[in-house]
Parts: sequence; C-alpha cells; structure tokens
Amino acid sequence: MGIKPPPPDIVIGRLPIYLRALDALSRNEQEITSSYELGKLLGISSAQIRKDLSHFGDFGKQGTGYQISYLTEQLRQILKVNREWAFVIMGAGLLGRALANYNGFGDHGFKPVAIFDVDQGKIGTKINNFTVQHINESPEVIQEHRVRIAMITTPASAAQEIADMVIEAGVQSILSYAPITLNVPDSIHVQYIDPVSKLQHMTYYIDEN
Amino acid sequence: MGIKPPPPDIVIGRLPIYLRALDALSRNEQEITSSYELGKLLGISSAQIRKDLSHFGDFGKQGTGYQISYLTEQLRQILKVNREWAFVIMGAGLLGRALANYNGFGDHGFKPVAIFDVDQGKIGTKINNFTVQHINESPEVIQEHRVRIAMITTPASAAQEIADMVIEAGVQSILSYAPITLNVPDSIHVQYIDPVSKLQHMTYYIDEN
Repeated sequence: MGIKPPPPDIVIGRLPIYLRALDALSRNEQEITSSYELGKLLGISSAQIRKDLSHFGDFGKQGTGYQISYLTEQLRQILKVNREWAFVIMGAGLLGRALANYNGFGDHGFKPVAIFDVDQGKIGTKINNFTVQHINESPEVIQEHRVRIAMITTPASAAQEIADMVIEAGVQSILSYAPITLNVPDSIHVQYIDPVSKLQHMTYYIDEN
Repeated sequence: MGIKPPPPDIVIGRLPIYLRALDALSRNEQEITSSYELGKLLGISSAQIRKDLSHFGDFGKQGTGYQISYLTEQLRQILKVNREWAFVIMGAGLLGRALANYNGFGDHGFKPVAIFDVDQGKIGTKINNFTVQHINESPEVIQEHRVRIAMITTPASAAQEIADMVIEAGVQSILSYAPITLNVPDSIHVQYIDPVSKLQHMTYYIDEN
C-alpha cells in the first residue's frame, strides 16, 4: 500500500466551497446532508465530492449521509481555519477599503489587523475600525502580530515590491488582486483574484446570437 | 477517431491566465515565447501548457516556440474576447464602485455600461463616468445594450433576487462577489469571487510554527 500521496491542490481548493455549502445548510437548521445534495447545490457530481472527501478520512456512512456539524468541524480543521488568522491589507483604494469594511471574514477564521497605503491623503483616515497607516510601517505590524497572510490591493505596478516587502517581514500567503503574476519563493503560496480572467472564462460559453 | 470531445472547463479557465502572461511578455516587447518560459512564469508545467493548447490547434513549432502576437490573437478568438462585451454592475457599495472605477477592463474585451443600487443615498451619485441608477431600471438597460454579463456586488441576502432579475432581462453570465451559491438555470454560467474561499485554500499550506 505504501504512503498515501498528498491530496491534489485542486481538491484543497474545493474544500472551502463545501464548507460554504455546509454553512448555508446549517443556517437553515439542517443537520444531515448527502454528497447528492451537496452536489446539486454546487453543480459538482456526488462521486467527485465523495472522492474528494475520501482523501481526508471517512466522514459519513453509506446511506446515512454526513452529519453537517461534524463534517464542518473536520473541514475547518483540515484547512486550519478552526482558529483565527490575522491578515493585513496592502493598499487603501476602493478595493482595499471594501475588504477592510467586509464583515464576512470573522465568521470564517480571518481577521484584518491593519491597512496600509503610500498616499498621504489616505494615511490617517479611518476605515471601519482601522486607521490607514504608511506602508513603511507594515513590516513592524506584520512581525508584532505574527501575520502570515497579506492581501495586495495596490496597482499592478506596485504589487511586486509590496509582495517582496511583506514576504521579508514573515508573510507566507498572499491573496493578490493585482493583475500580474508575482515572482515569489517556492515556499510562498499566492492566490489571485482577477475579475478579467473570470469574465474571459465565461465569454467562452456565451451564445453570441 | 471520431469527434474530438470539448475541452474541459478547467482548461478553459487556464486560457485567460496564459493570455495575461502573454500580455506581460508582449509589454516587454518580446516576440517569441515557449511553453517552458510560460510555465516558469505561471508555475504550471510546460507539458500541461502544451496539452492545454493542443485542444484548440497547433500554435507553435517544436523547438521554435510560440509567436506571442499570433497565440494572443488565437486565444482571444477562442475566448471570444476579440470584441467588446458590455456588462452591468449590480450594487454600488465600495466593491461595486471599485469595479466601476477599475480601468483594466477595456484592454481585455469588457466595458461596464451601468451601475445600479437600491439605496436612495447612492442613486444619482457619480462614479467614474457613471451615474448610479435604481436597480429597477436595470432590465431596460440590459435589453437596450444587449448586455450578456452582470457582476453582482450586493450583500448575500439580495444576490439571488438580483440574479433572477438580470437573467430574466437577458444576462447569460454572472460574476458574483456574494458569498452564496446562486440557483440558476443550466444555460447560465456563474463564476464566483470569494476571498474567504481563497484564504481558506491558502491556510491549508501555512506552516504554523
């Protein structure tokens, strides 16, 4: 049999989606679900869901489905979000401010701790409970709060420099909204959010008539 | 041999990423690239890139690489972004306003045509070149401009109702920033942008020590 190979990254990427669906069912006070129901909700086959979950253990009995609270807790543990991760927001433009104002992080394991910019017109202004700080203060904040996650919401032209800066200060994961591919060491995990790529993906399927 | 199966959706989703890398190379006035160079830039194997592209034709000669302008044009044609797609923004909060202000759509085949909200305090205000309109006016705008794409930036609680409304008016593709799974007909393509899911994906890889 040998050692089990690590789960593919694409499977890891689907676990948060399962978690979101479980949250929605649980808000409706449902206690049990099935791979069939989750699949219907998410547009993923039930076989795929069972296969994905089987990488991590045996979470349900054949024919009786999954207990939502148990599966939720297990997925949160696997993804390490059964705790609170501090993150910083690099860039206080409209997007950075939207993220600083968003109240959906706290329930899911994340907490913004500071927002930074270089614009003197923004520094010192308030967003939600935060006062925008100069980007040069970010290394100290990252070290002090042992921050491992940064969101980059600067223009593309500044993103690489900011990435280098936060990595140097101890950040291990970057969520970048800048539409460029960042050059980072192998140990650093980067995810991108780019509406243009998502739109271009969808236009492939649009019936032009 | 029979008929070639349609390319998997996951391959379609990578084409915009290739396009973005080609754009970056081309801005550096480079004319030729290789699957090896693209792979290095994007953290994808060169074999994967060659396999992905082979679904759509033969874009390079063995050993001579890809002509960047030609491959770019071909990918734009495959993704149908060698034209301009109008889209509407449903929700004029900070995120909707960030999208209305973003100047990166025009170069990549997309053009916002209107932004809507229900908040009387926002209706009539200016964002970029747009005046925020009441959401009830959106069906007329969608039909008039033959809009096929909507971005939903409303709170989760309003997203399903807004989705139903824009689909009824003729929208075929939705890019949703609301953290819920939308219930839509099979013919409608939905993509989600959810920073929480991206963060949860990354924390799996964080070394906690």
